[in-house]
Amino acid sequence: VSAEIDLITDYFRDLGVARSDVVLGIGDDAAIVRESPGCDLIMTTDSLVEGSHFLPGADPRSLGHRALVINLSDCAAMGASPCWALLSLNLPAVDHSWLQQFCAGFGALLQRSGVALIGGNLTRGPLSITVQMAGSVPAGAAVTRSGGKPGDLLCLSGSTGDAAAGRELLARPGTATADSVRSALCQRFEFPTARVALGVALRGLASACIDVSDGLWVDLERLAAASRCGAEIEHDALPLSAALQAYAPSTAMQLALCGGEDYELLFTLPQSRLAALQAHADATSTPCTVIGRLCARPGVTLRRAGSVMQFSPTTFDHFAVRN
Amino acid sequence: VSAEIDLITDYFRDLGVARSDVVLGIGDDAAIVRESPGCDLIMTTDSLVEGSHFLPGADPRSLGHRALVINLSDCAAMGASPCWALLSLNLPAVDHSWLQQFCAGFGALLQRSGVALIGGNLTRGPLSITVQMAGSVPAGAAVTRSGGKPGDLLCLSGSTGDAAAGRELLARPGTATADSVRSALCQRFEFPTARVALGVALRGLASACIDVSDGLWVDLERLAAASRCGAEIEHDALPLSAALQAYAPSTAMQLALCGGEDYELLFTLPQSRLAALQAHADATSTPCTVIGRLCARPGVTLRRAGSVMQFSPTTFDHFAVRN
Repeated sequence: VSAEIDLITDYFRDLGVARSDVVLGIGDDAAIVRESPGCDLIMTTDSLVEGSHFLPGADPRSLGHRALVINLSDCAAMGASPCWALLSLNLPAVDHSWLQQFCAGFGALLQRSGVALIGGNLTRGPLSITVQMAGSVPAGAAVTRSGGKPGDLLCLSGSTGDAAAGRELLARPGTATADSVRSALCQRFEFPTARVALGVALRGLASACIDVSDGLWVDLERLAAASRCGAEIEHDALPLSAALQAYAPSTAMQLALCGGEDYELLFTLPQSRLAALQAHADATSTPCTVIGRLCARPGVTLRRAGSVMQFSPTTFDHFAVRN
Repeated sequence: VSAEIDLITDYFRDLGVARSDVVLGIGDDAAIVRESPGCDLIMTTDSLVEGSHFLPGADPRSLGHRALVINLSDCAAMGASPCWALLSLNLPAVDHSWLQQFCAGFGALLQRSGVALIGGNLTRGPLSITVQMAGSVPAGAAVTRSGGKPGDLLCLSGSTGDAAAGRELLARPGTATADSVRSALCQRFEFPTARVALGVALRGLASACIDVSDGLWVDLERLAAASRCGAEIEHDALPLSAALQAYAPSTAMQLALCGGEDYELLFTLPQSRLAALQAHADATSTPCTVIGRLCARPGVTLRRAGSVMQFSPTTFDHFAVRN
């Protein structure tokens, strides 16, 4: 009998939520699921690769959490409710302690998110983790990147830059920082929150949405380009966490604009829907800030007191940065 | 602007088939698809990892083909029509020649299979390829591993062992073999066929089905265990290709029973449906052979002229073999 099968059975079978729309889960050639009538299906995949997304020796519980968050966040950005996940794990060797911790992080977030794990496979190889996720949204109600209009308000959930600061602190453990600041920022990198409830609330409210995975600036460029318009960020409106300001008073703004892996939602909506957004944000306990607006002129600009500031973004891109 | 986005746009966007059930393909946070009413969704994922599934320097066209076949074959084993695929590619560096050939192999088979590529991501890392596939089957009509009954006939499409022989020949290029034999066997390893049309034909016909990915013996053990019965293989009924017999006259049977990656379908059906199977096999031009039957006693046995043969399988399992 196959060791791979035993591993999958032991570690993966009971990790997720039991959902009534799963006809057949892990253990056959494929899973069988049954979508609700009148719904569209949202499908996405994203990976964590050692050396690109995390350093050797990274906490496996954090990797399990993050491998799921990157996909939950894609679902959230579409306004979808996450339903089912599949996991492909490349492991250098069978390390039961590593697997237990990985599954603890992965499973806890599956449970909190109401997601069933319906398939998985394990292969010997350099450590990398790929998750595929399917979510559900009422037919036609998905929020895309392309629906923004000039004049729409530009909104951001939470704040950005913390995850990049946490990544720096993990890579350079000797950096002098107060323990509470270090712990808050590392938490944002290692255990980020996907804005799933907010994403669902944005159906019919947001004109466009993207999740901030590669950095606020570059992700805003993508949203604006997809919506065939430009965008202006108000420098003084950008939320900065207290921890980020304590860690890096001089570069906090740079980190907030260009640091990746925050998994906040960046979205647009007409001014007339701002009150409805505020009600939803309150109901889901999600801080949301208006940070600027879309404009007709292409490109992204940073403004302060009515003037355009010079700003040169350095983005977070696995191929561009390291090639 | 992100280099990753450019790469995805250049290489992946137009690879697959344009399907009317794809609302939004590559380019947003996630894809949007719309399933046919009254259908179940089949979801699977499988990977190819350098060092485990292929050697360094393997033909990228073959890798593109195989990365898709392993998932098409899972769909086929469930009786599903393949619909949508997502691709996660870890590449050590951006190699345009490699990407072009990979996409040629991947795209050609997407086209032949009628599958849309709805998502993809690229990360720098040791070479590995993960594909997720979703297929469609009328609600309740999926074929699983668990429906076999004692007395059901055991059938195999095509023949097994060729892919393992081809893998041996690629790993040891100096092996003395006739060119035509070498080429036939390497083709079976590098460009296997997923039995998609047969899989669809098996709906309502087969009581259980599995695809032969890890070896006929071990995959039969899985089918029999899932069906809570045992199985007998008739030694003299097992189909062996002429190329396999020419390559390895003394070990052909061992390769046929234990070699993996043939992606043939192994399935069971009551004797009463044999004529219907034959008609479907003829209609889809798929050779199918009755190679034994399920029995009440657990376990798999090999029989010849009524007697049980001693046989000790060595299986093809990435973790079990190499750990």
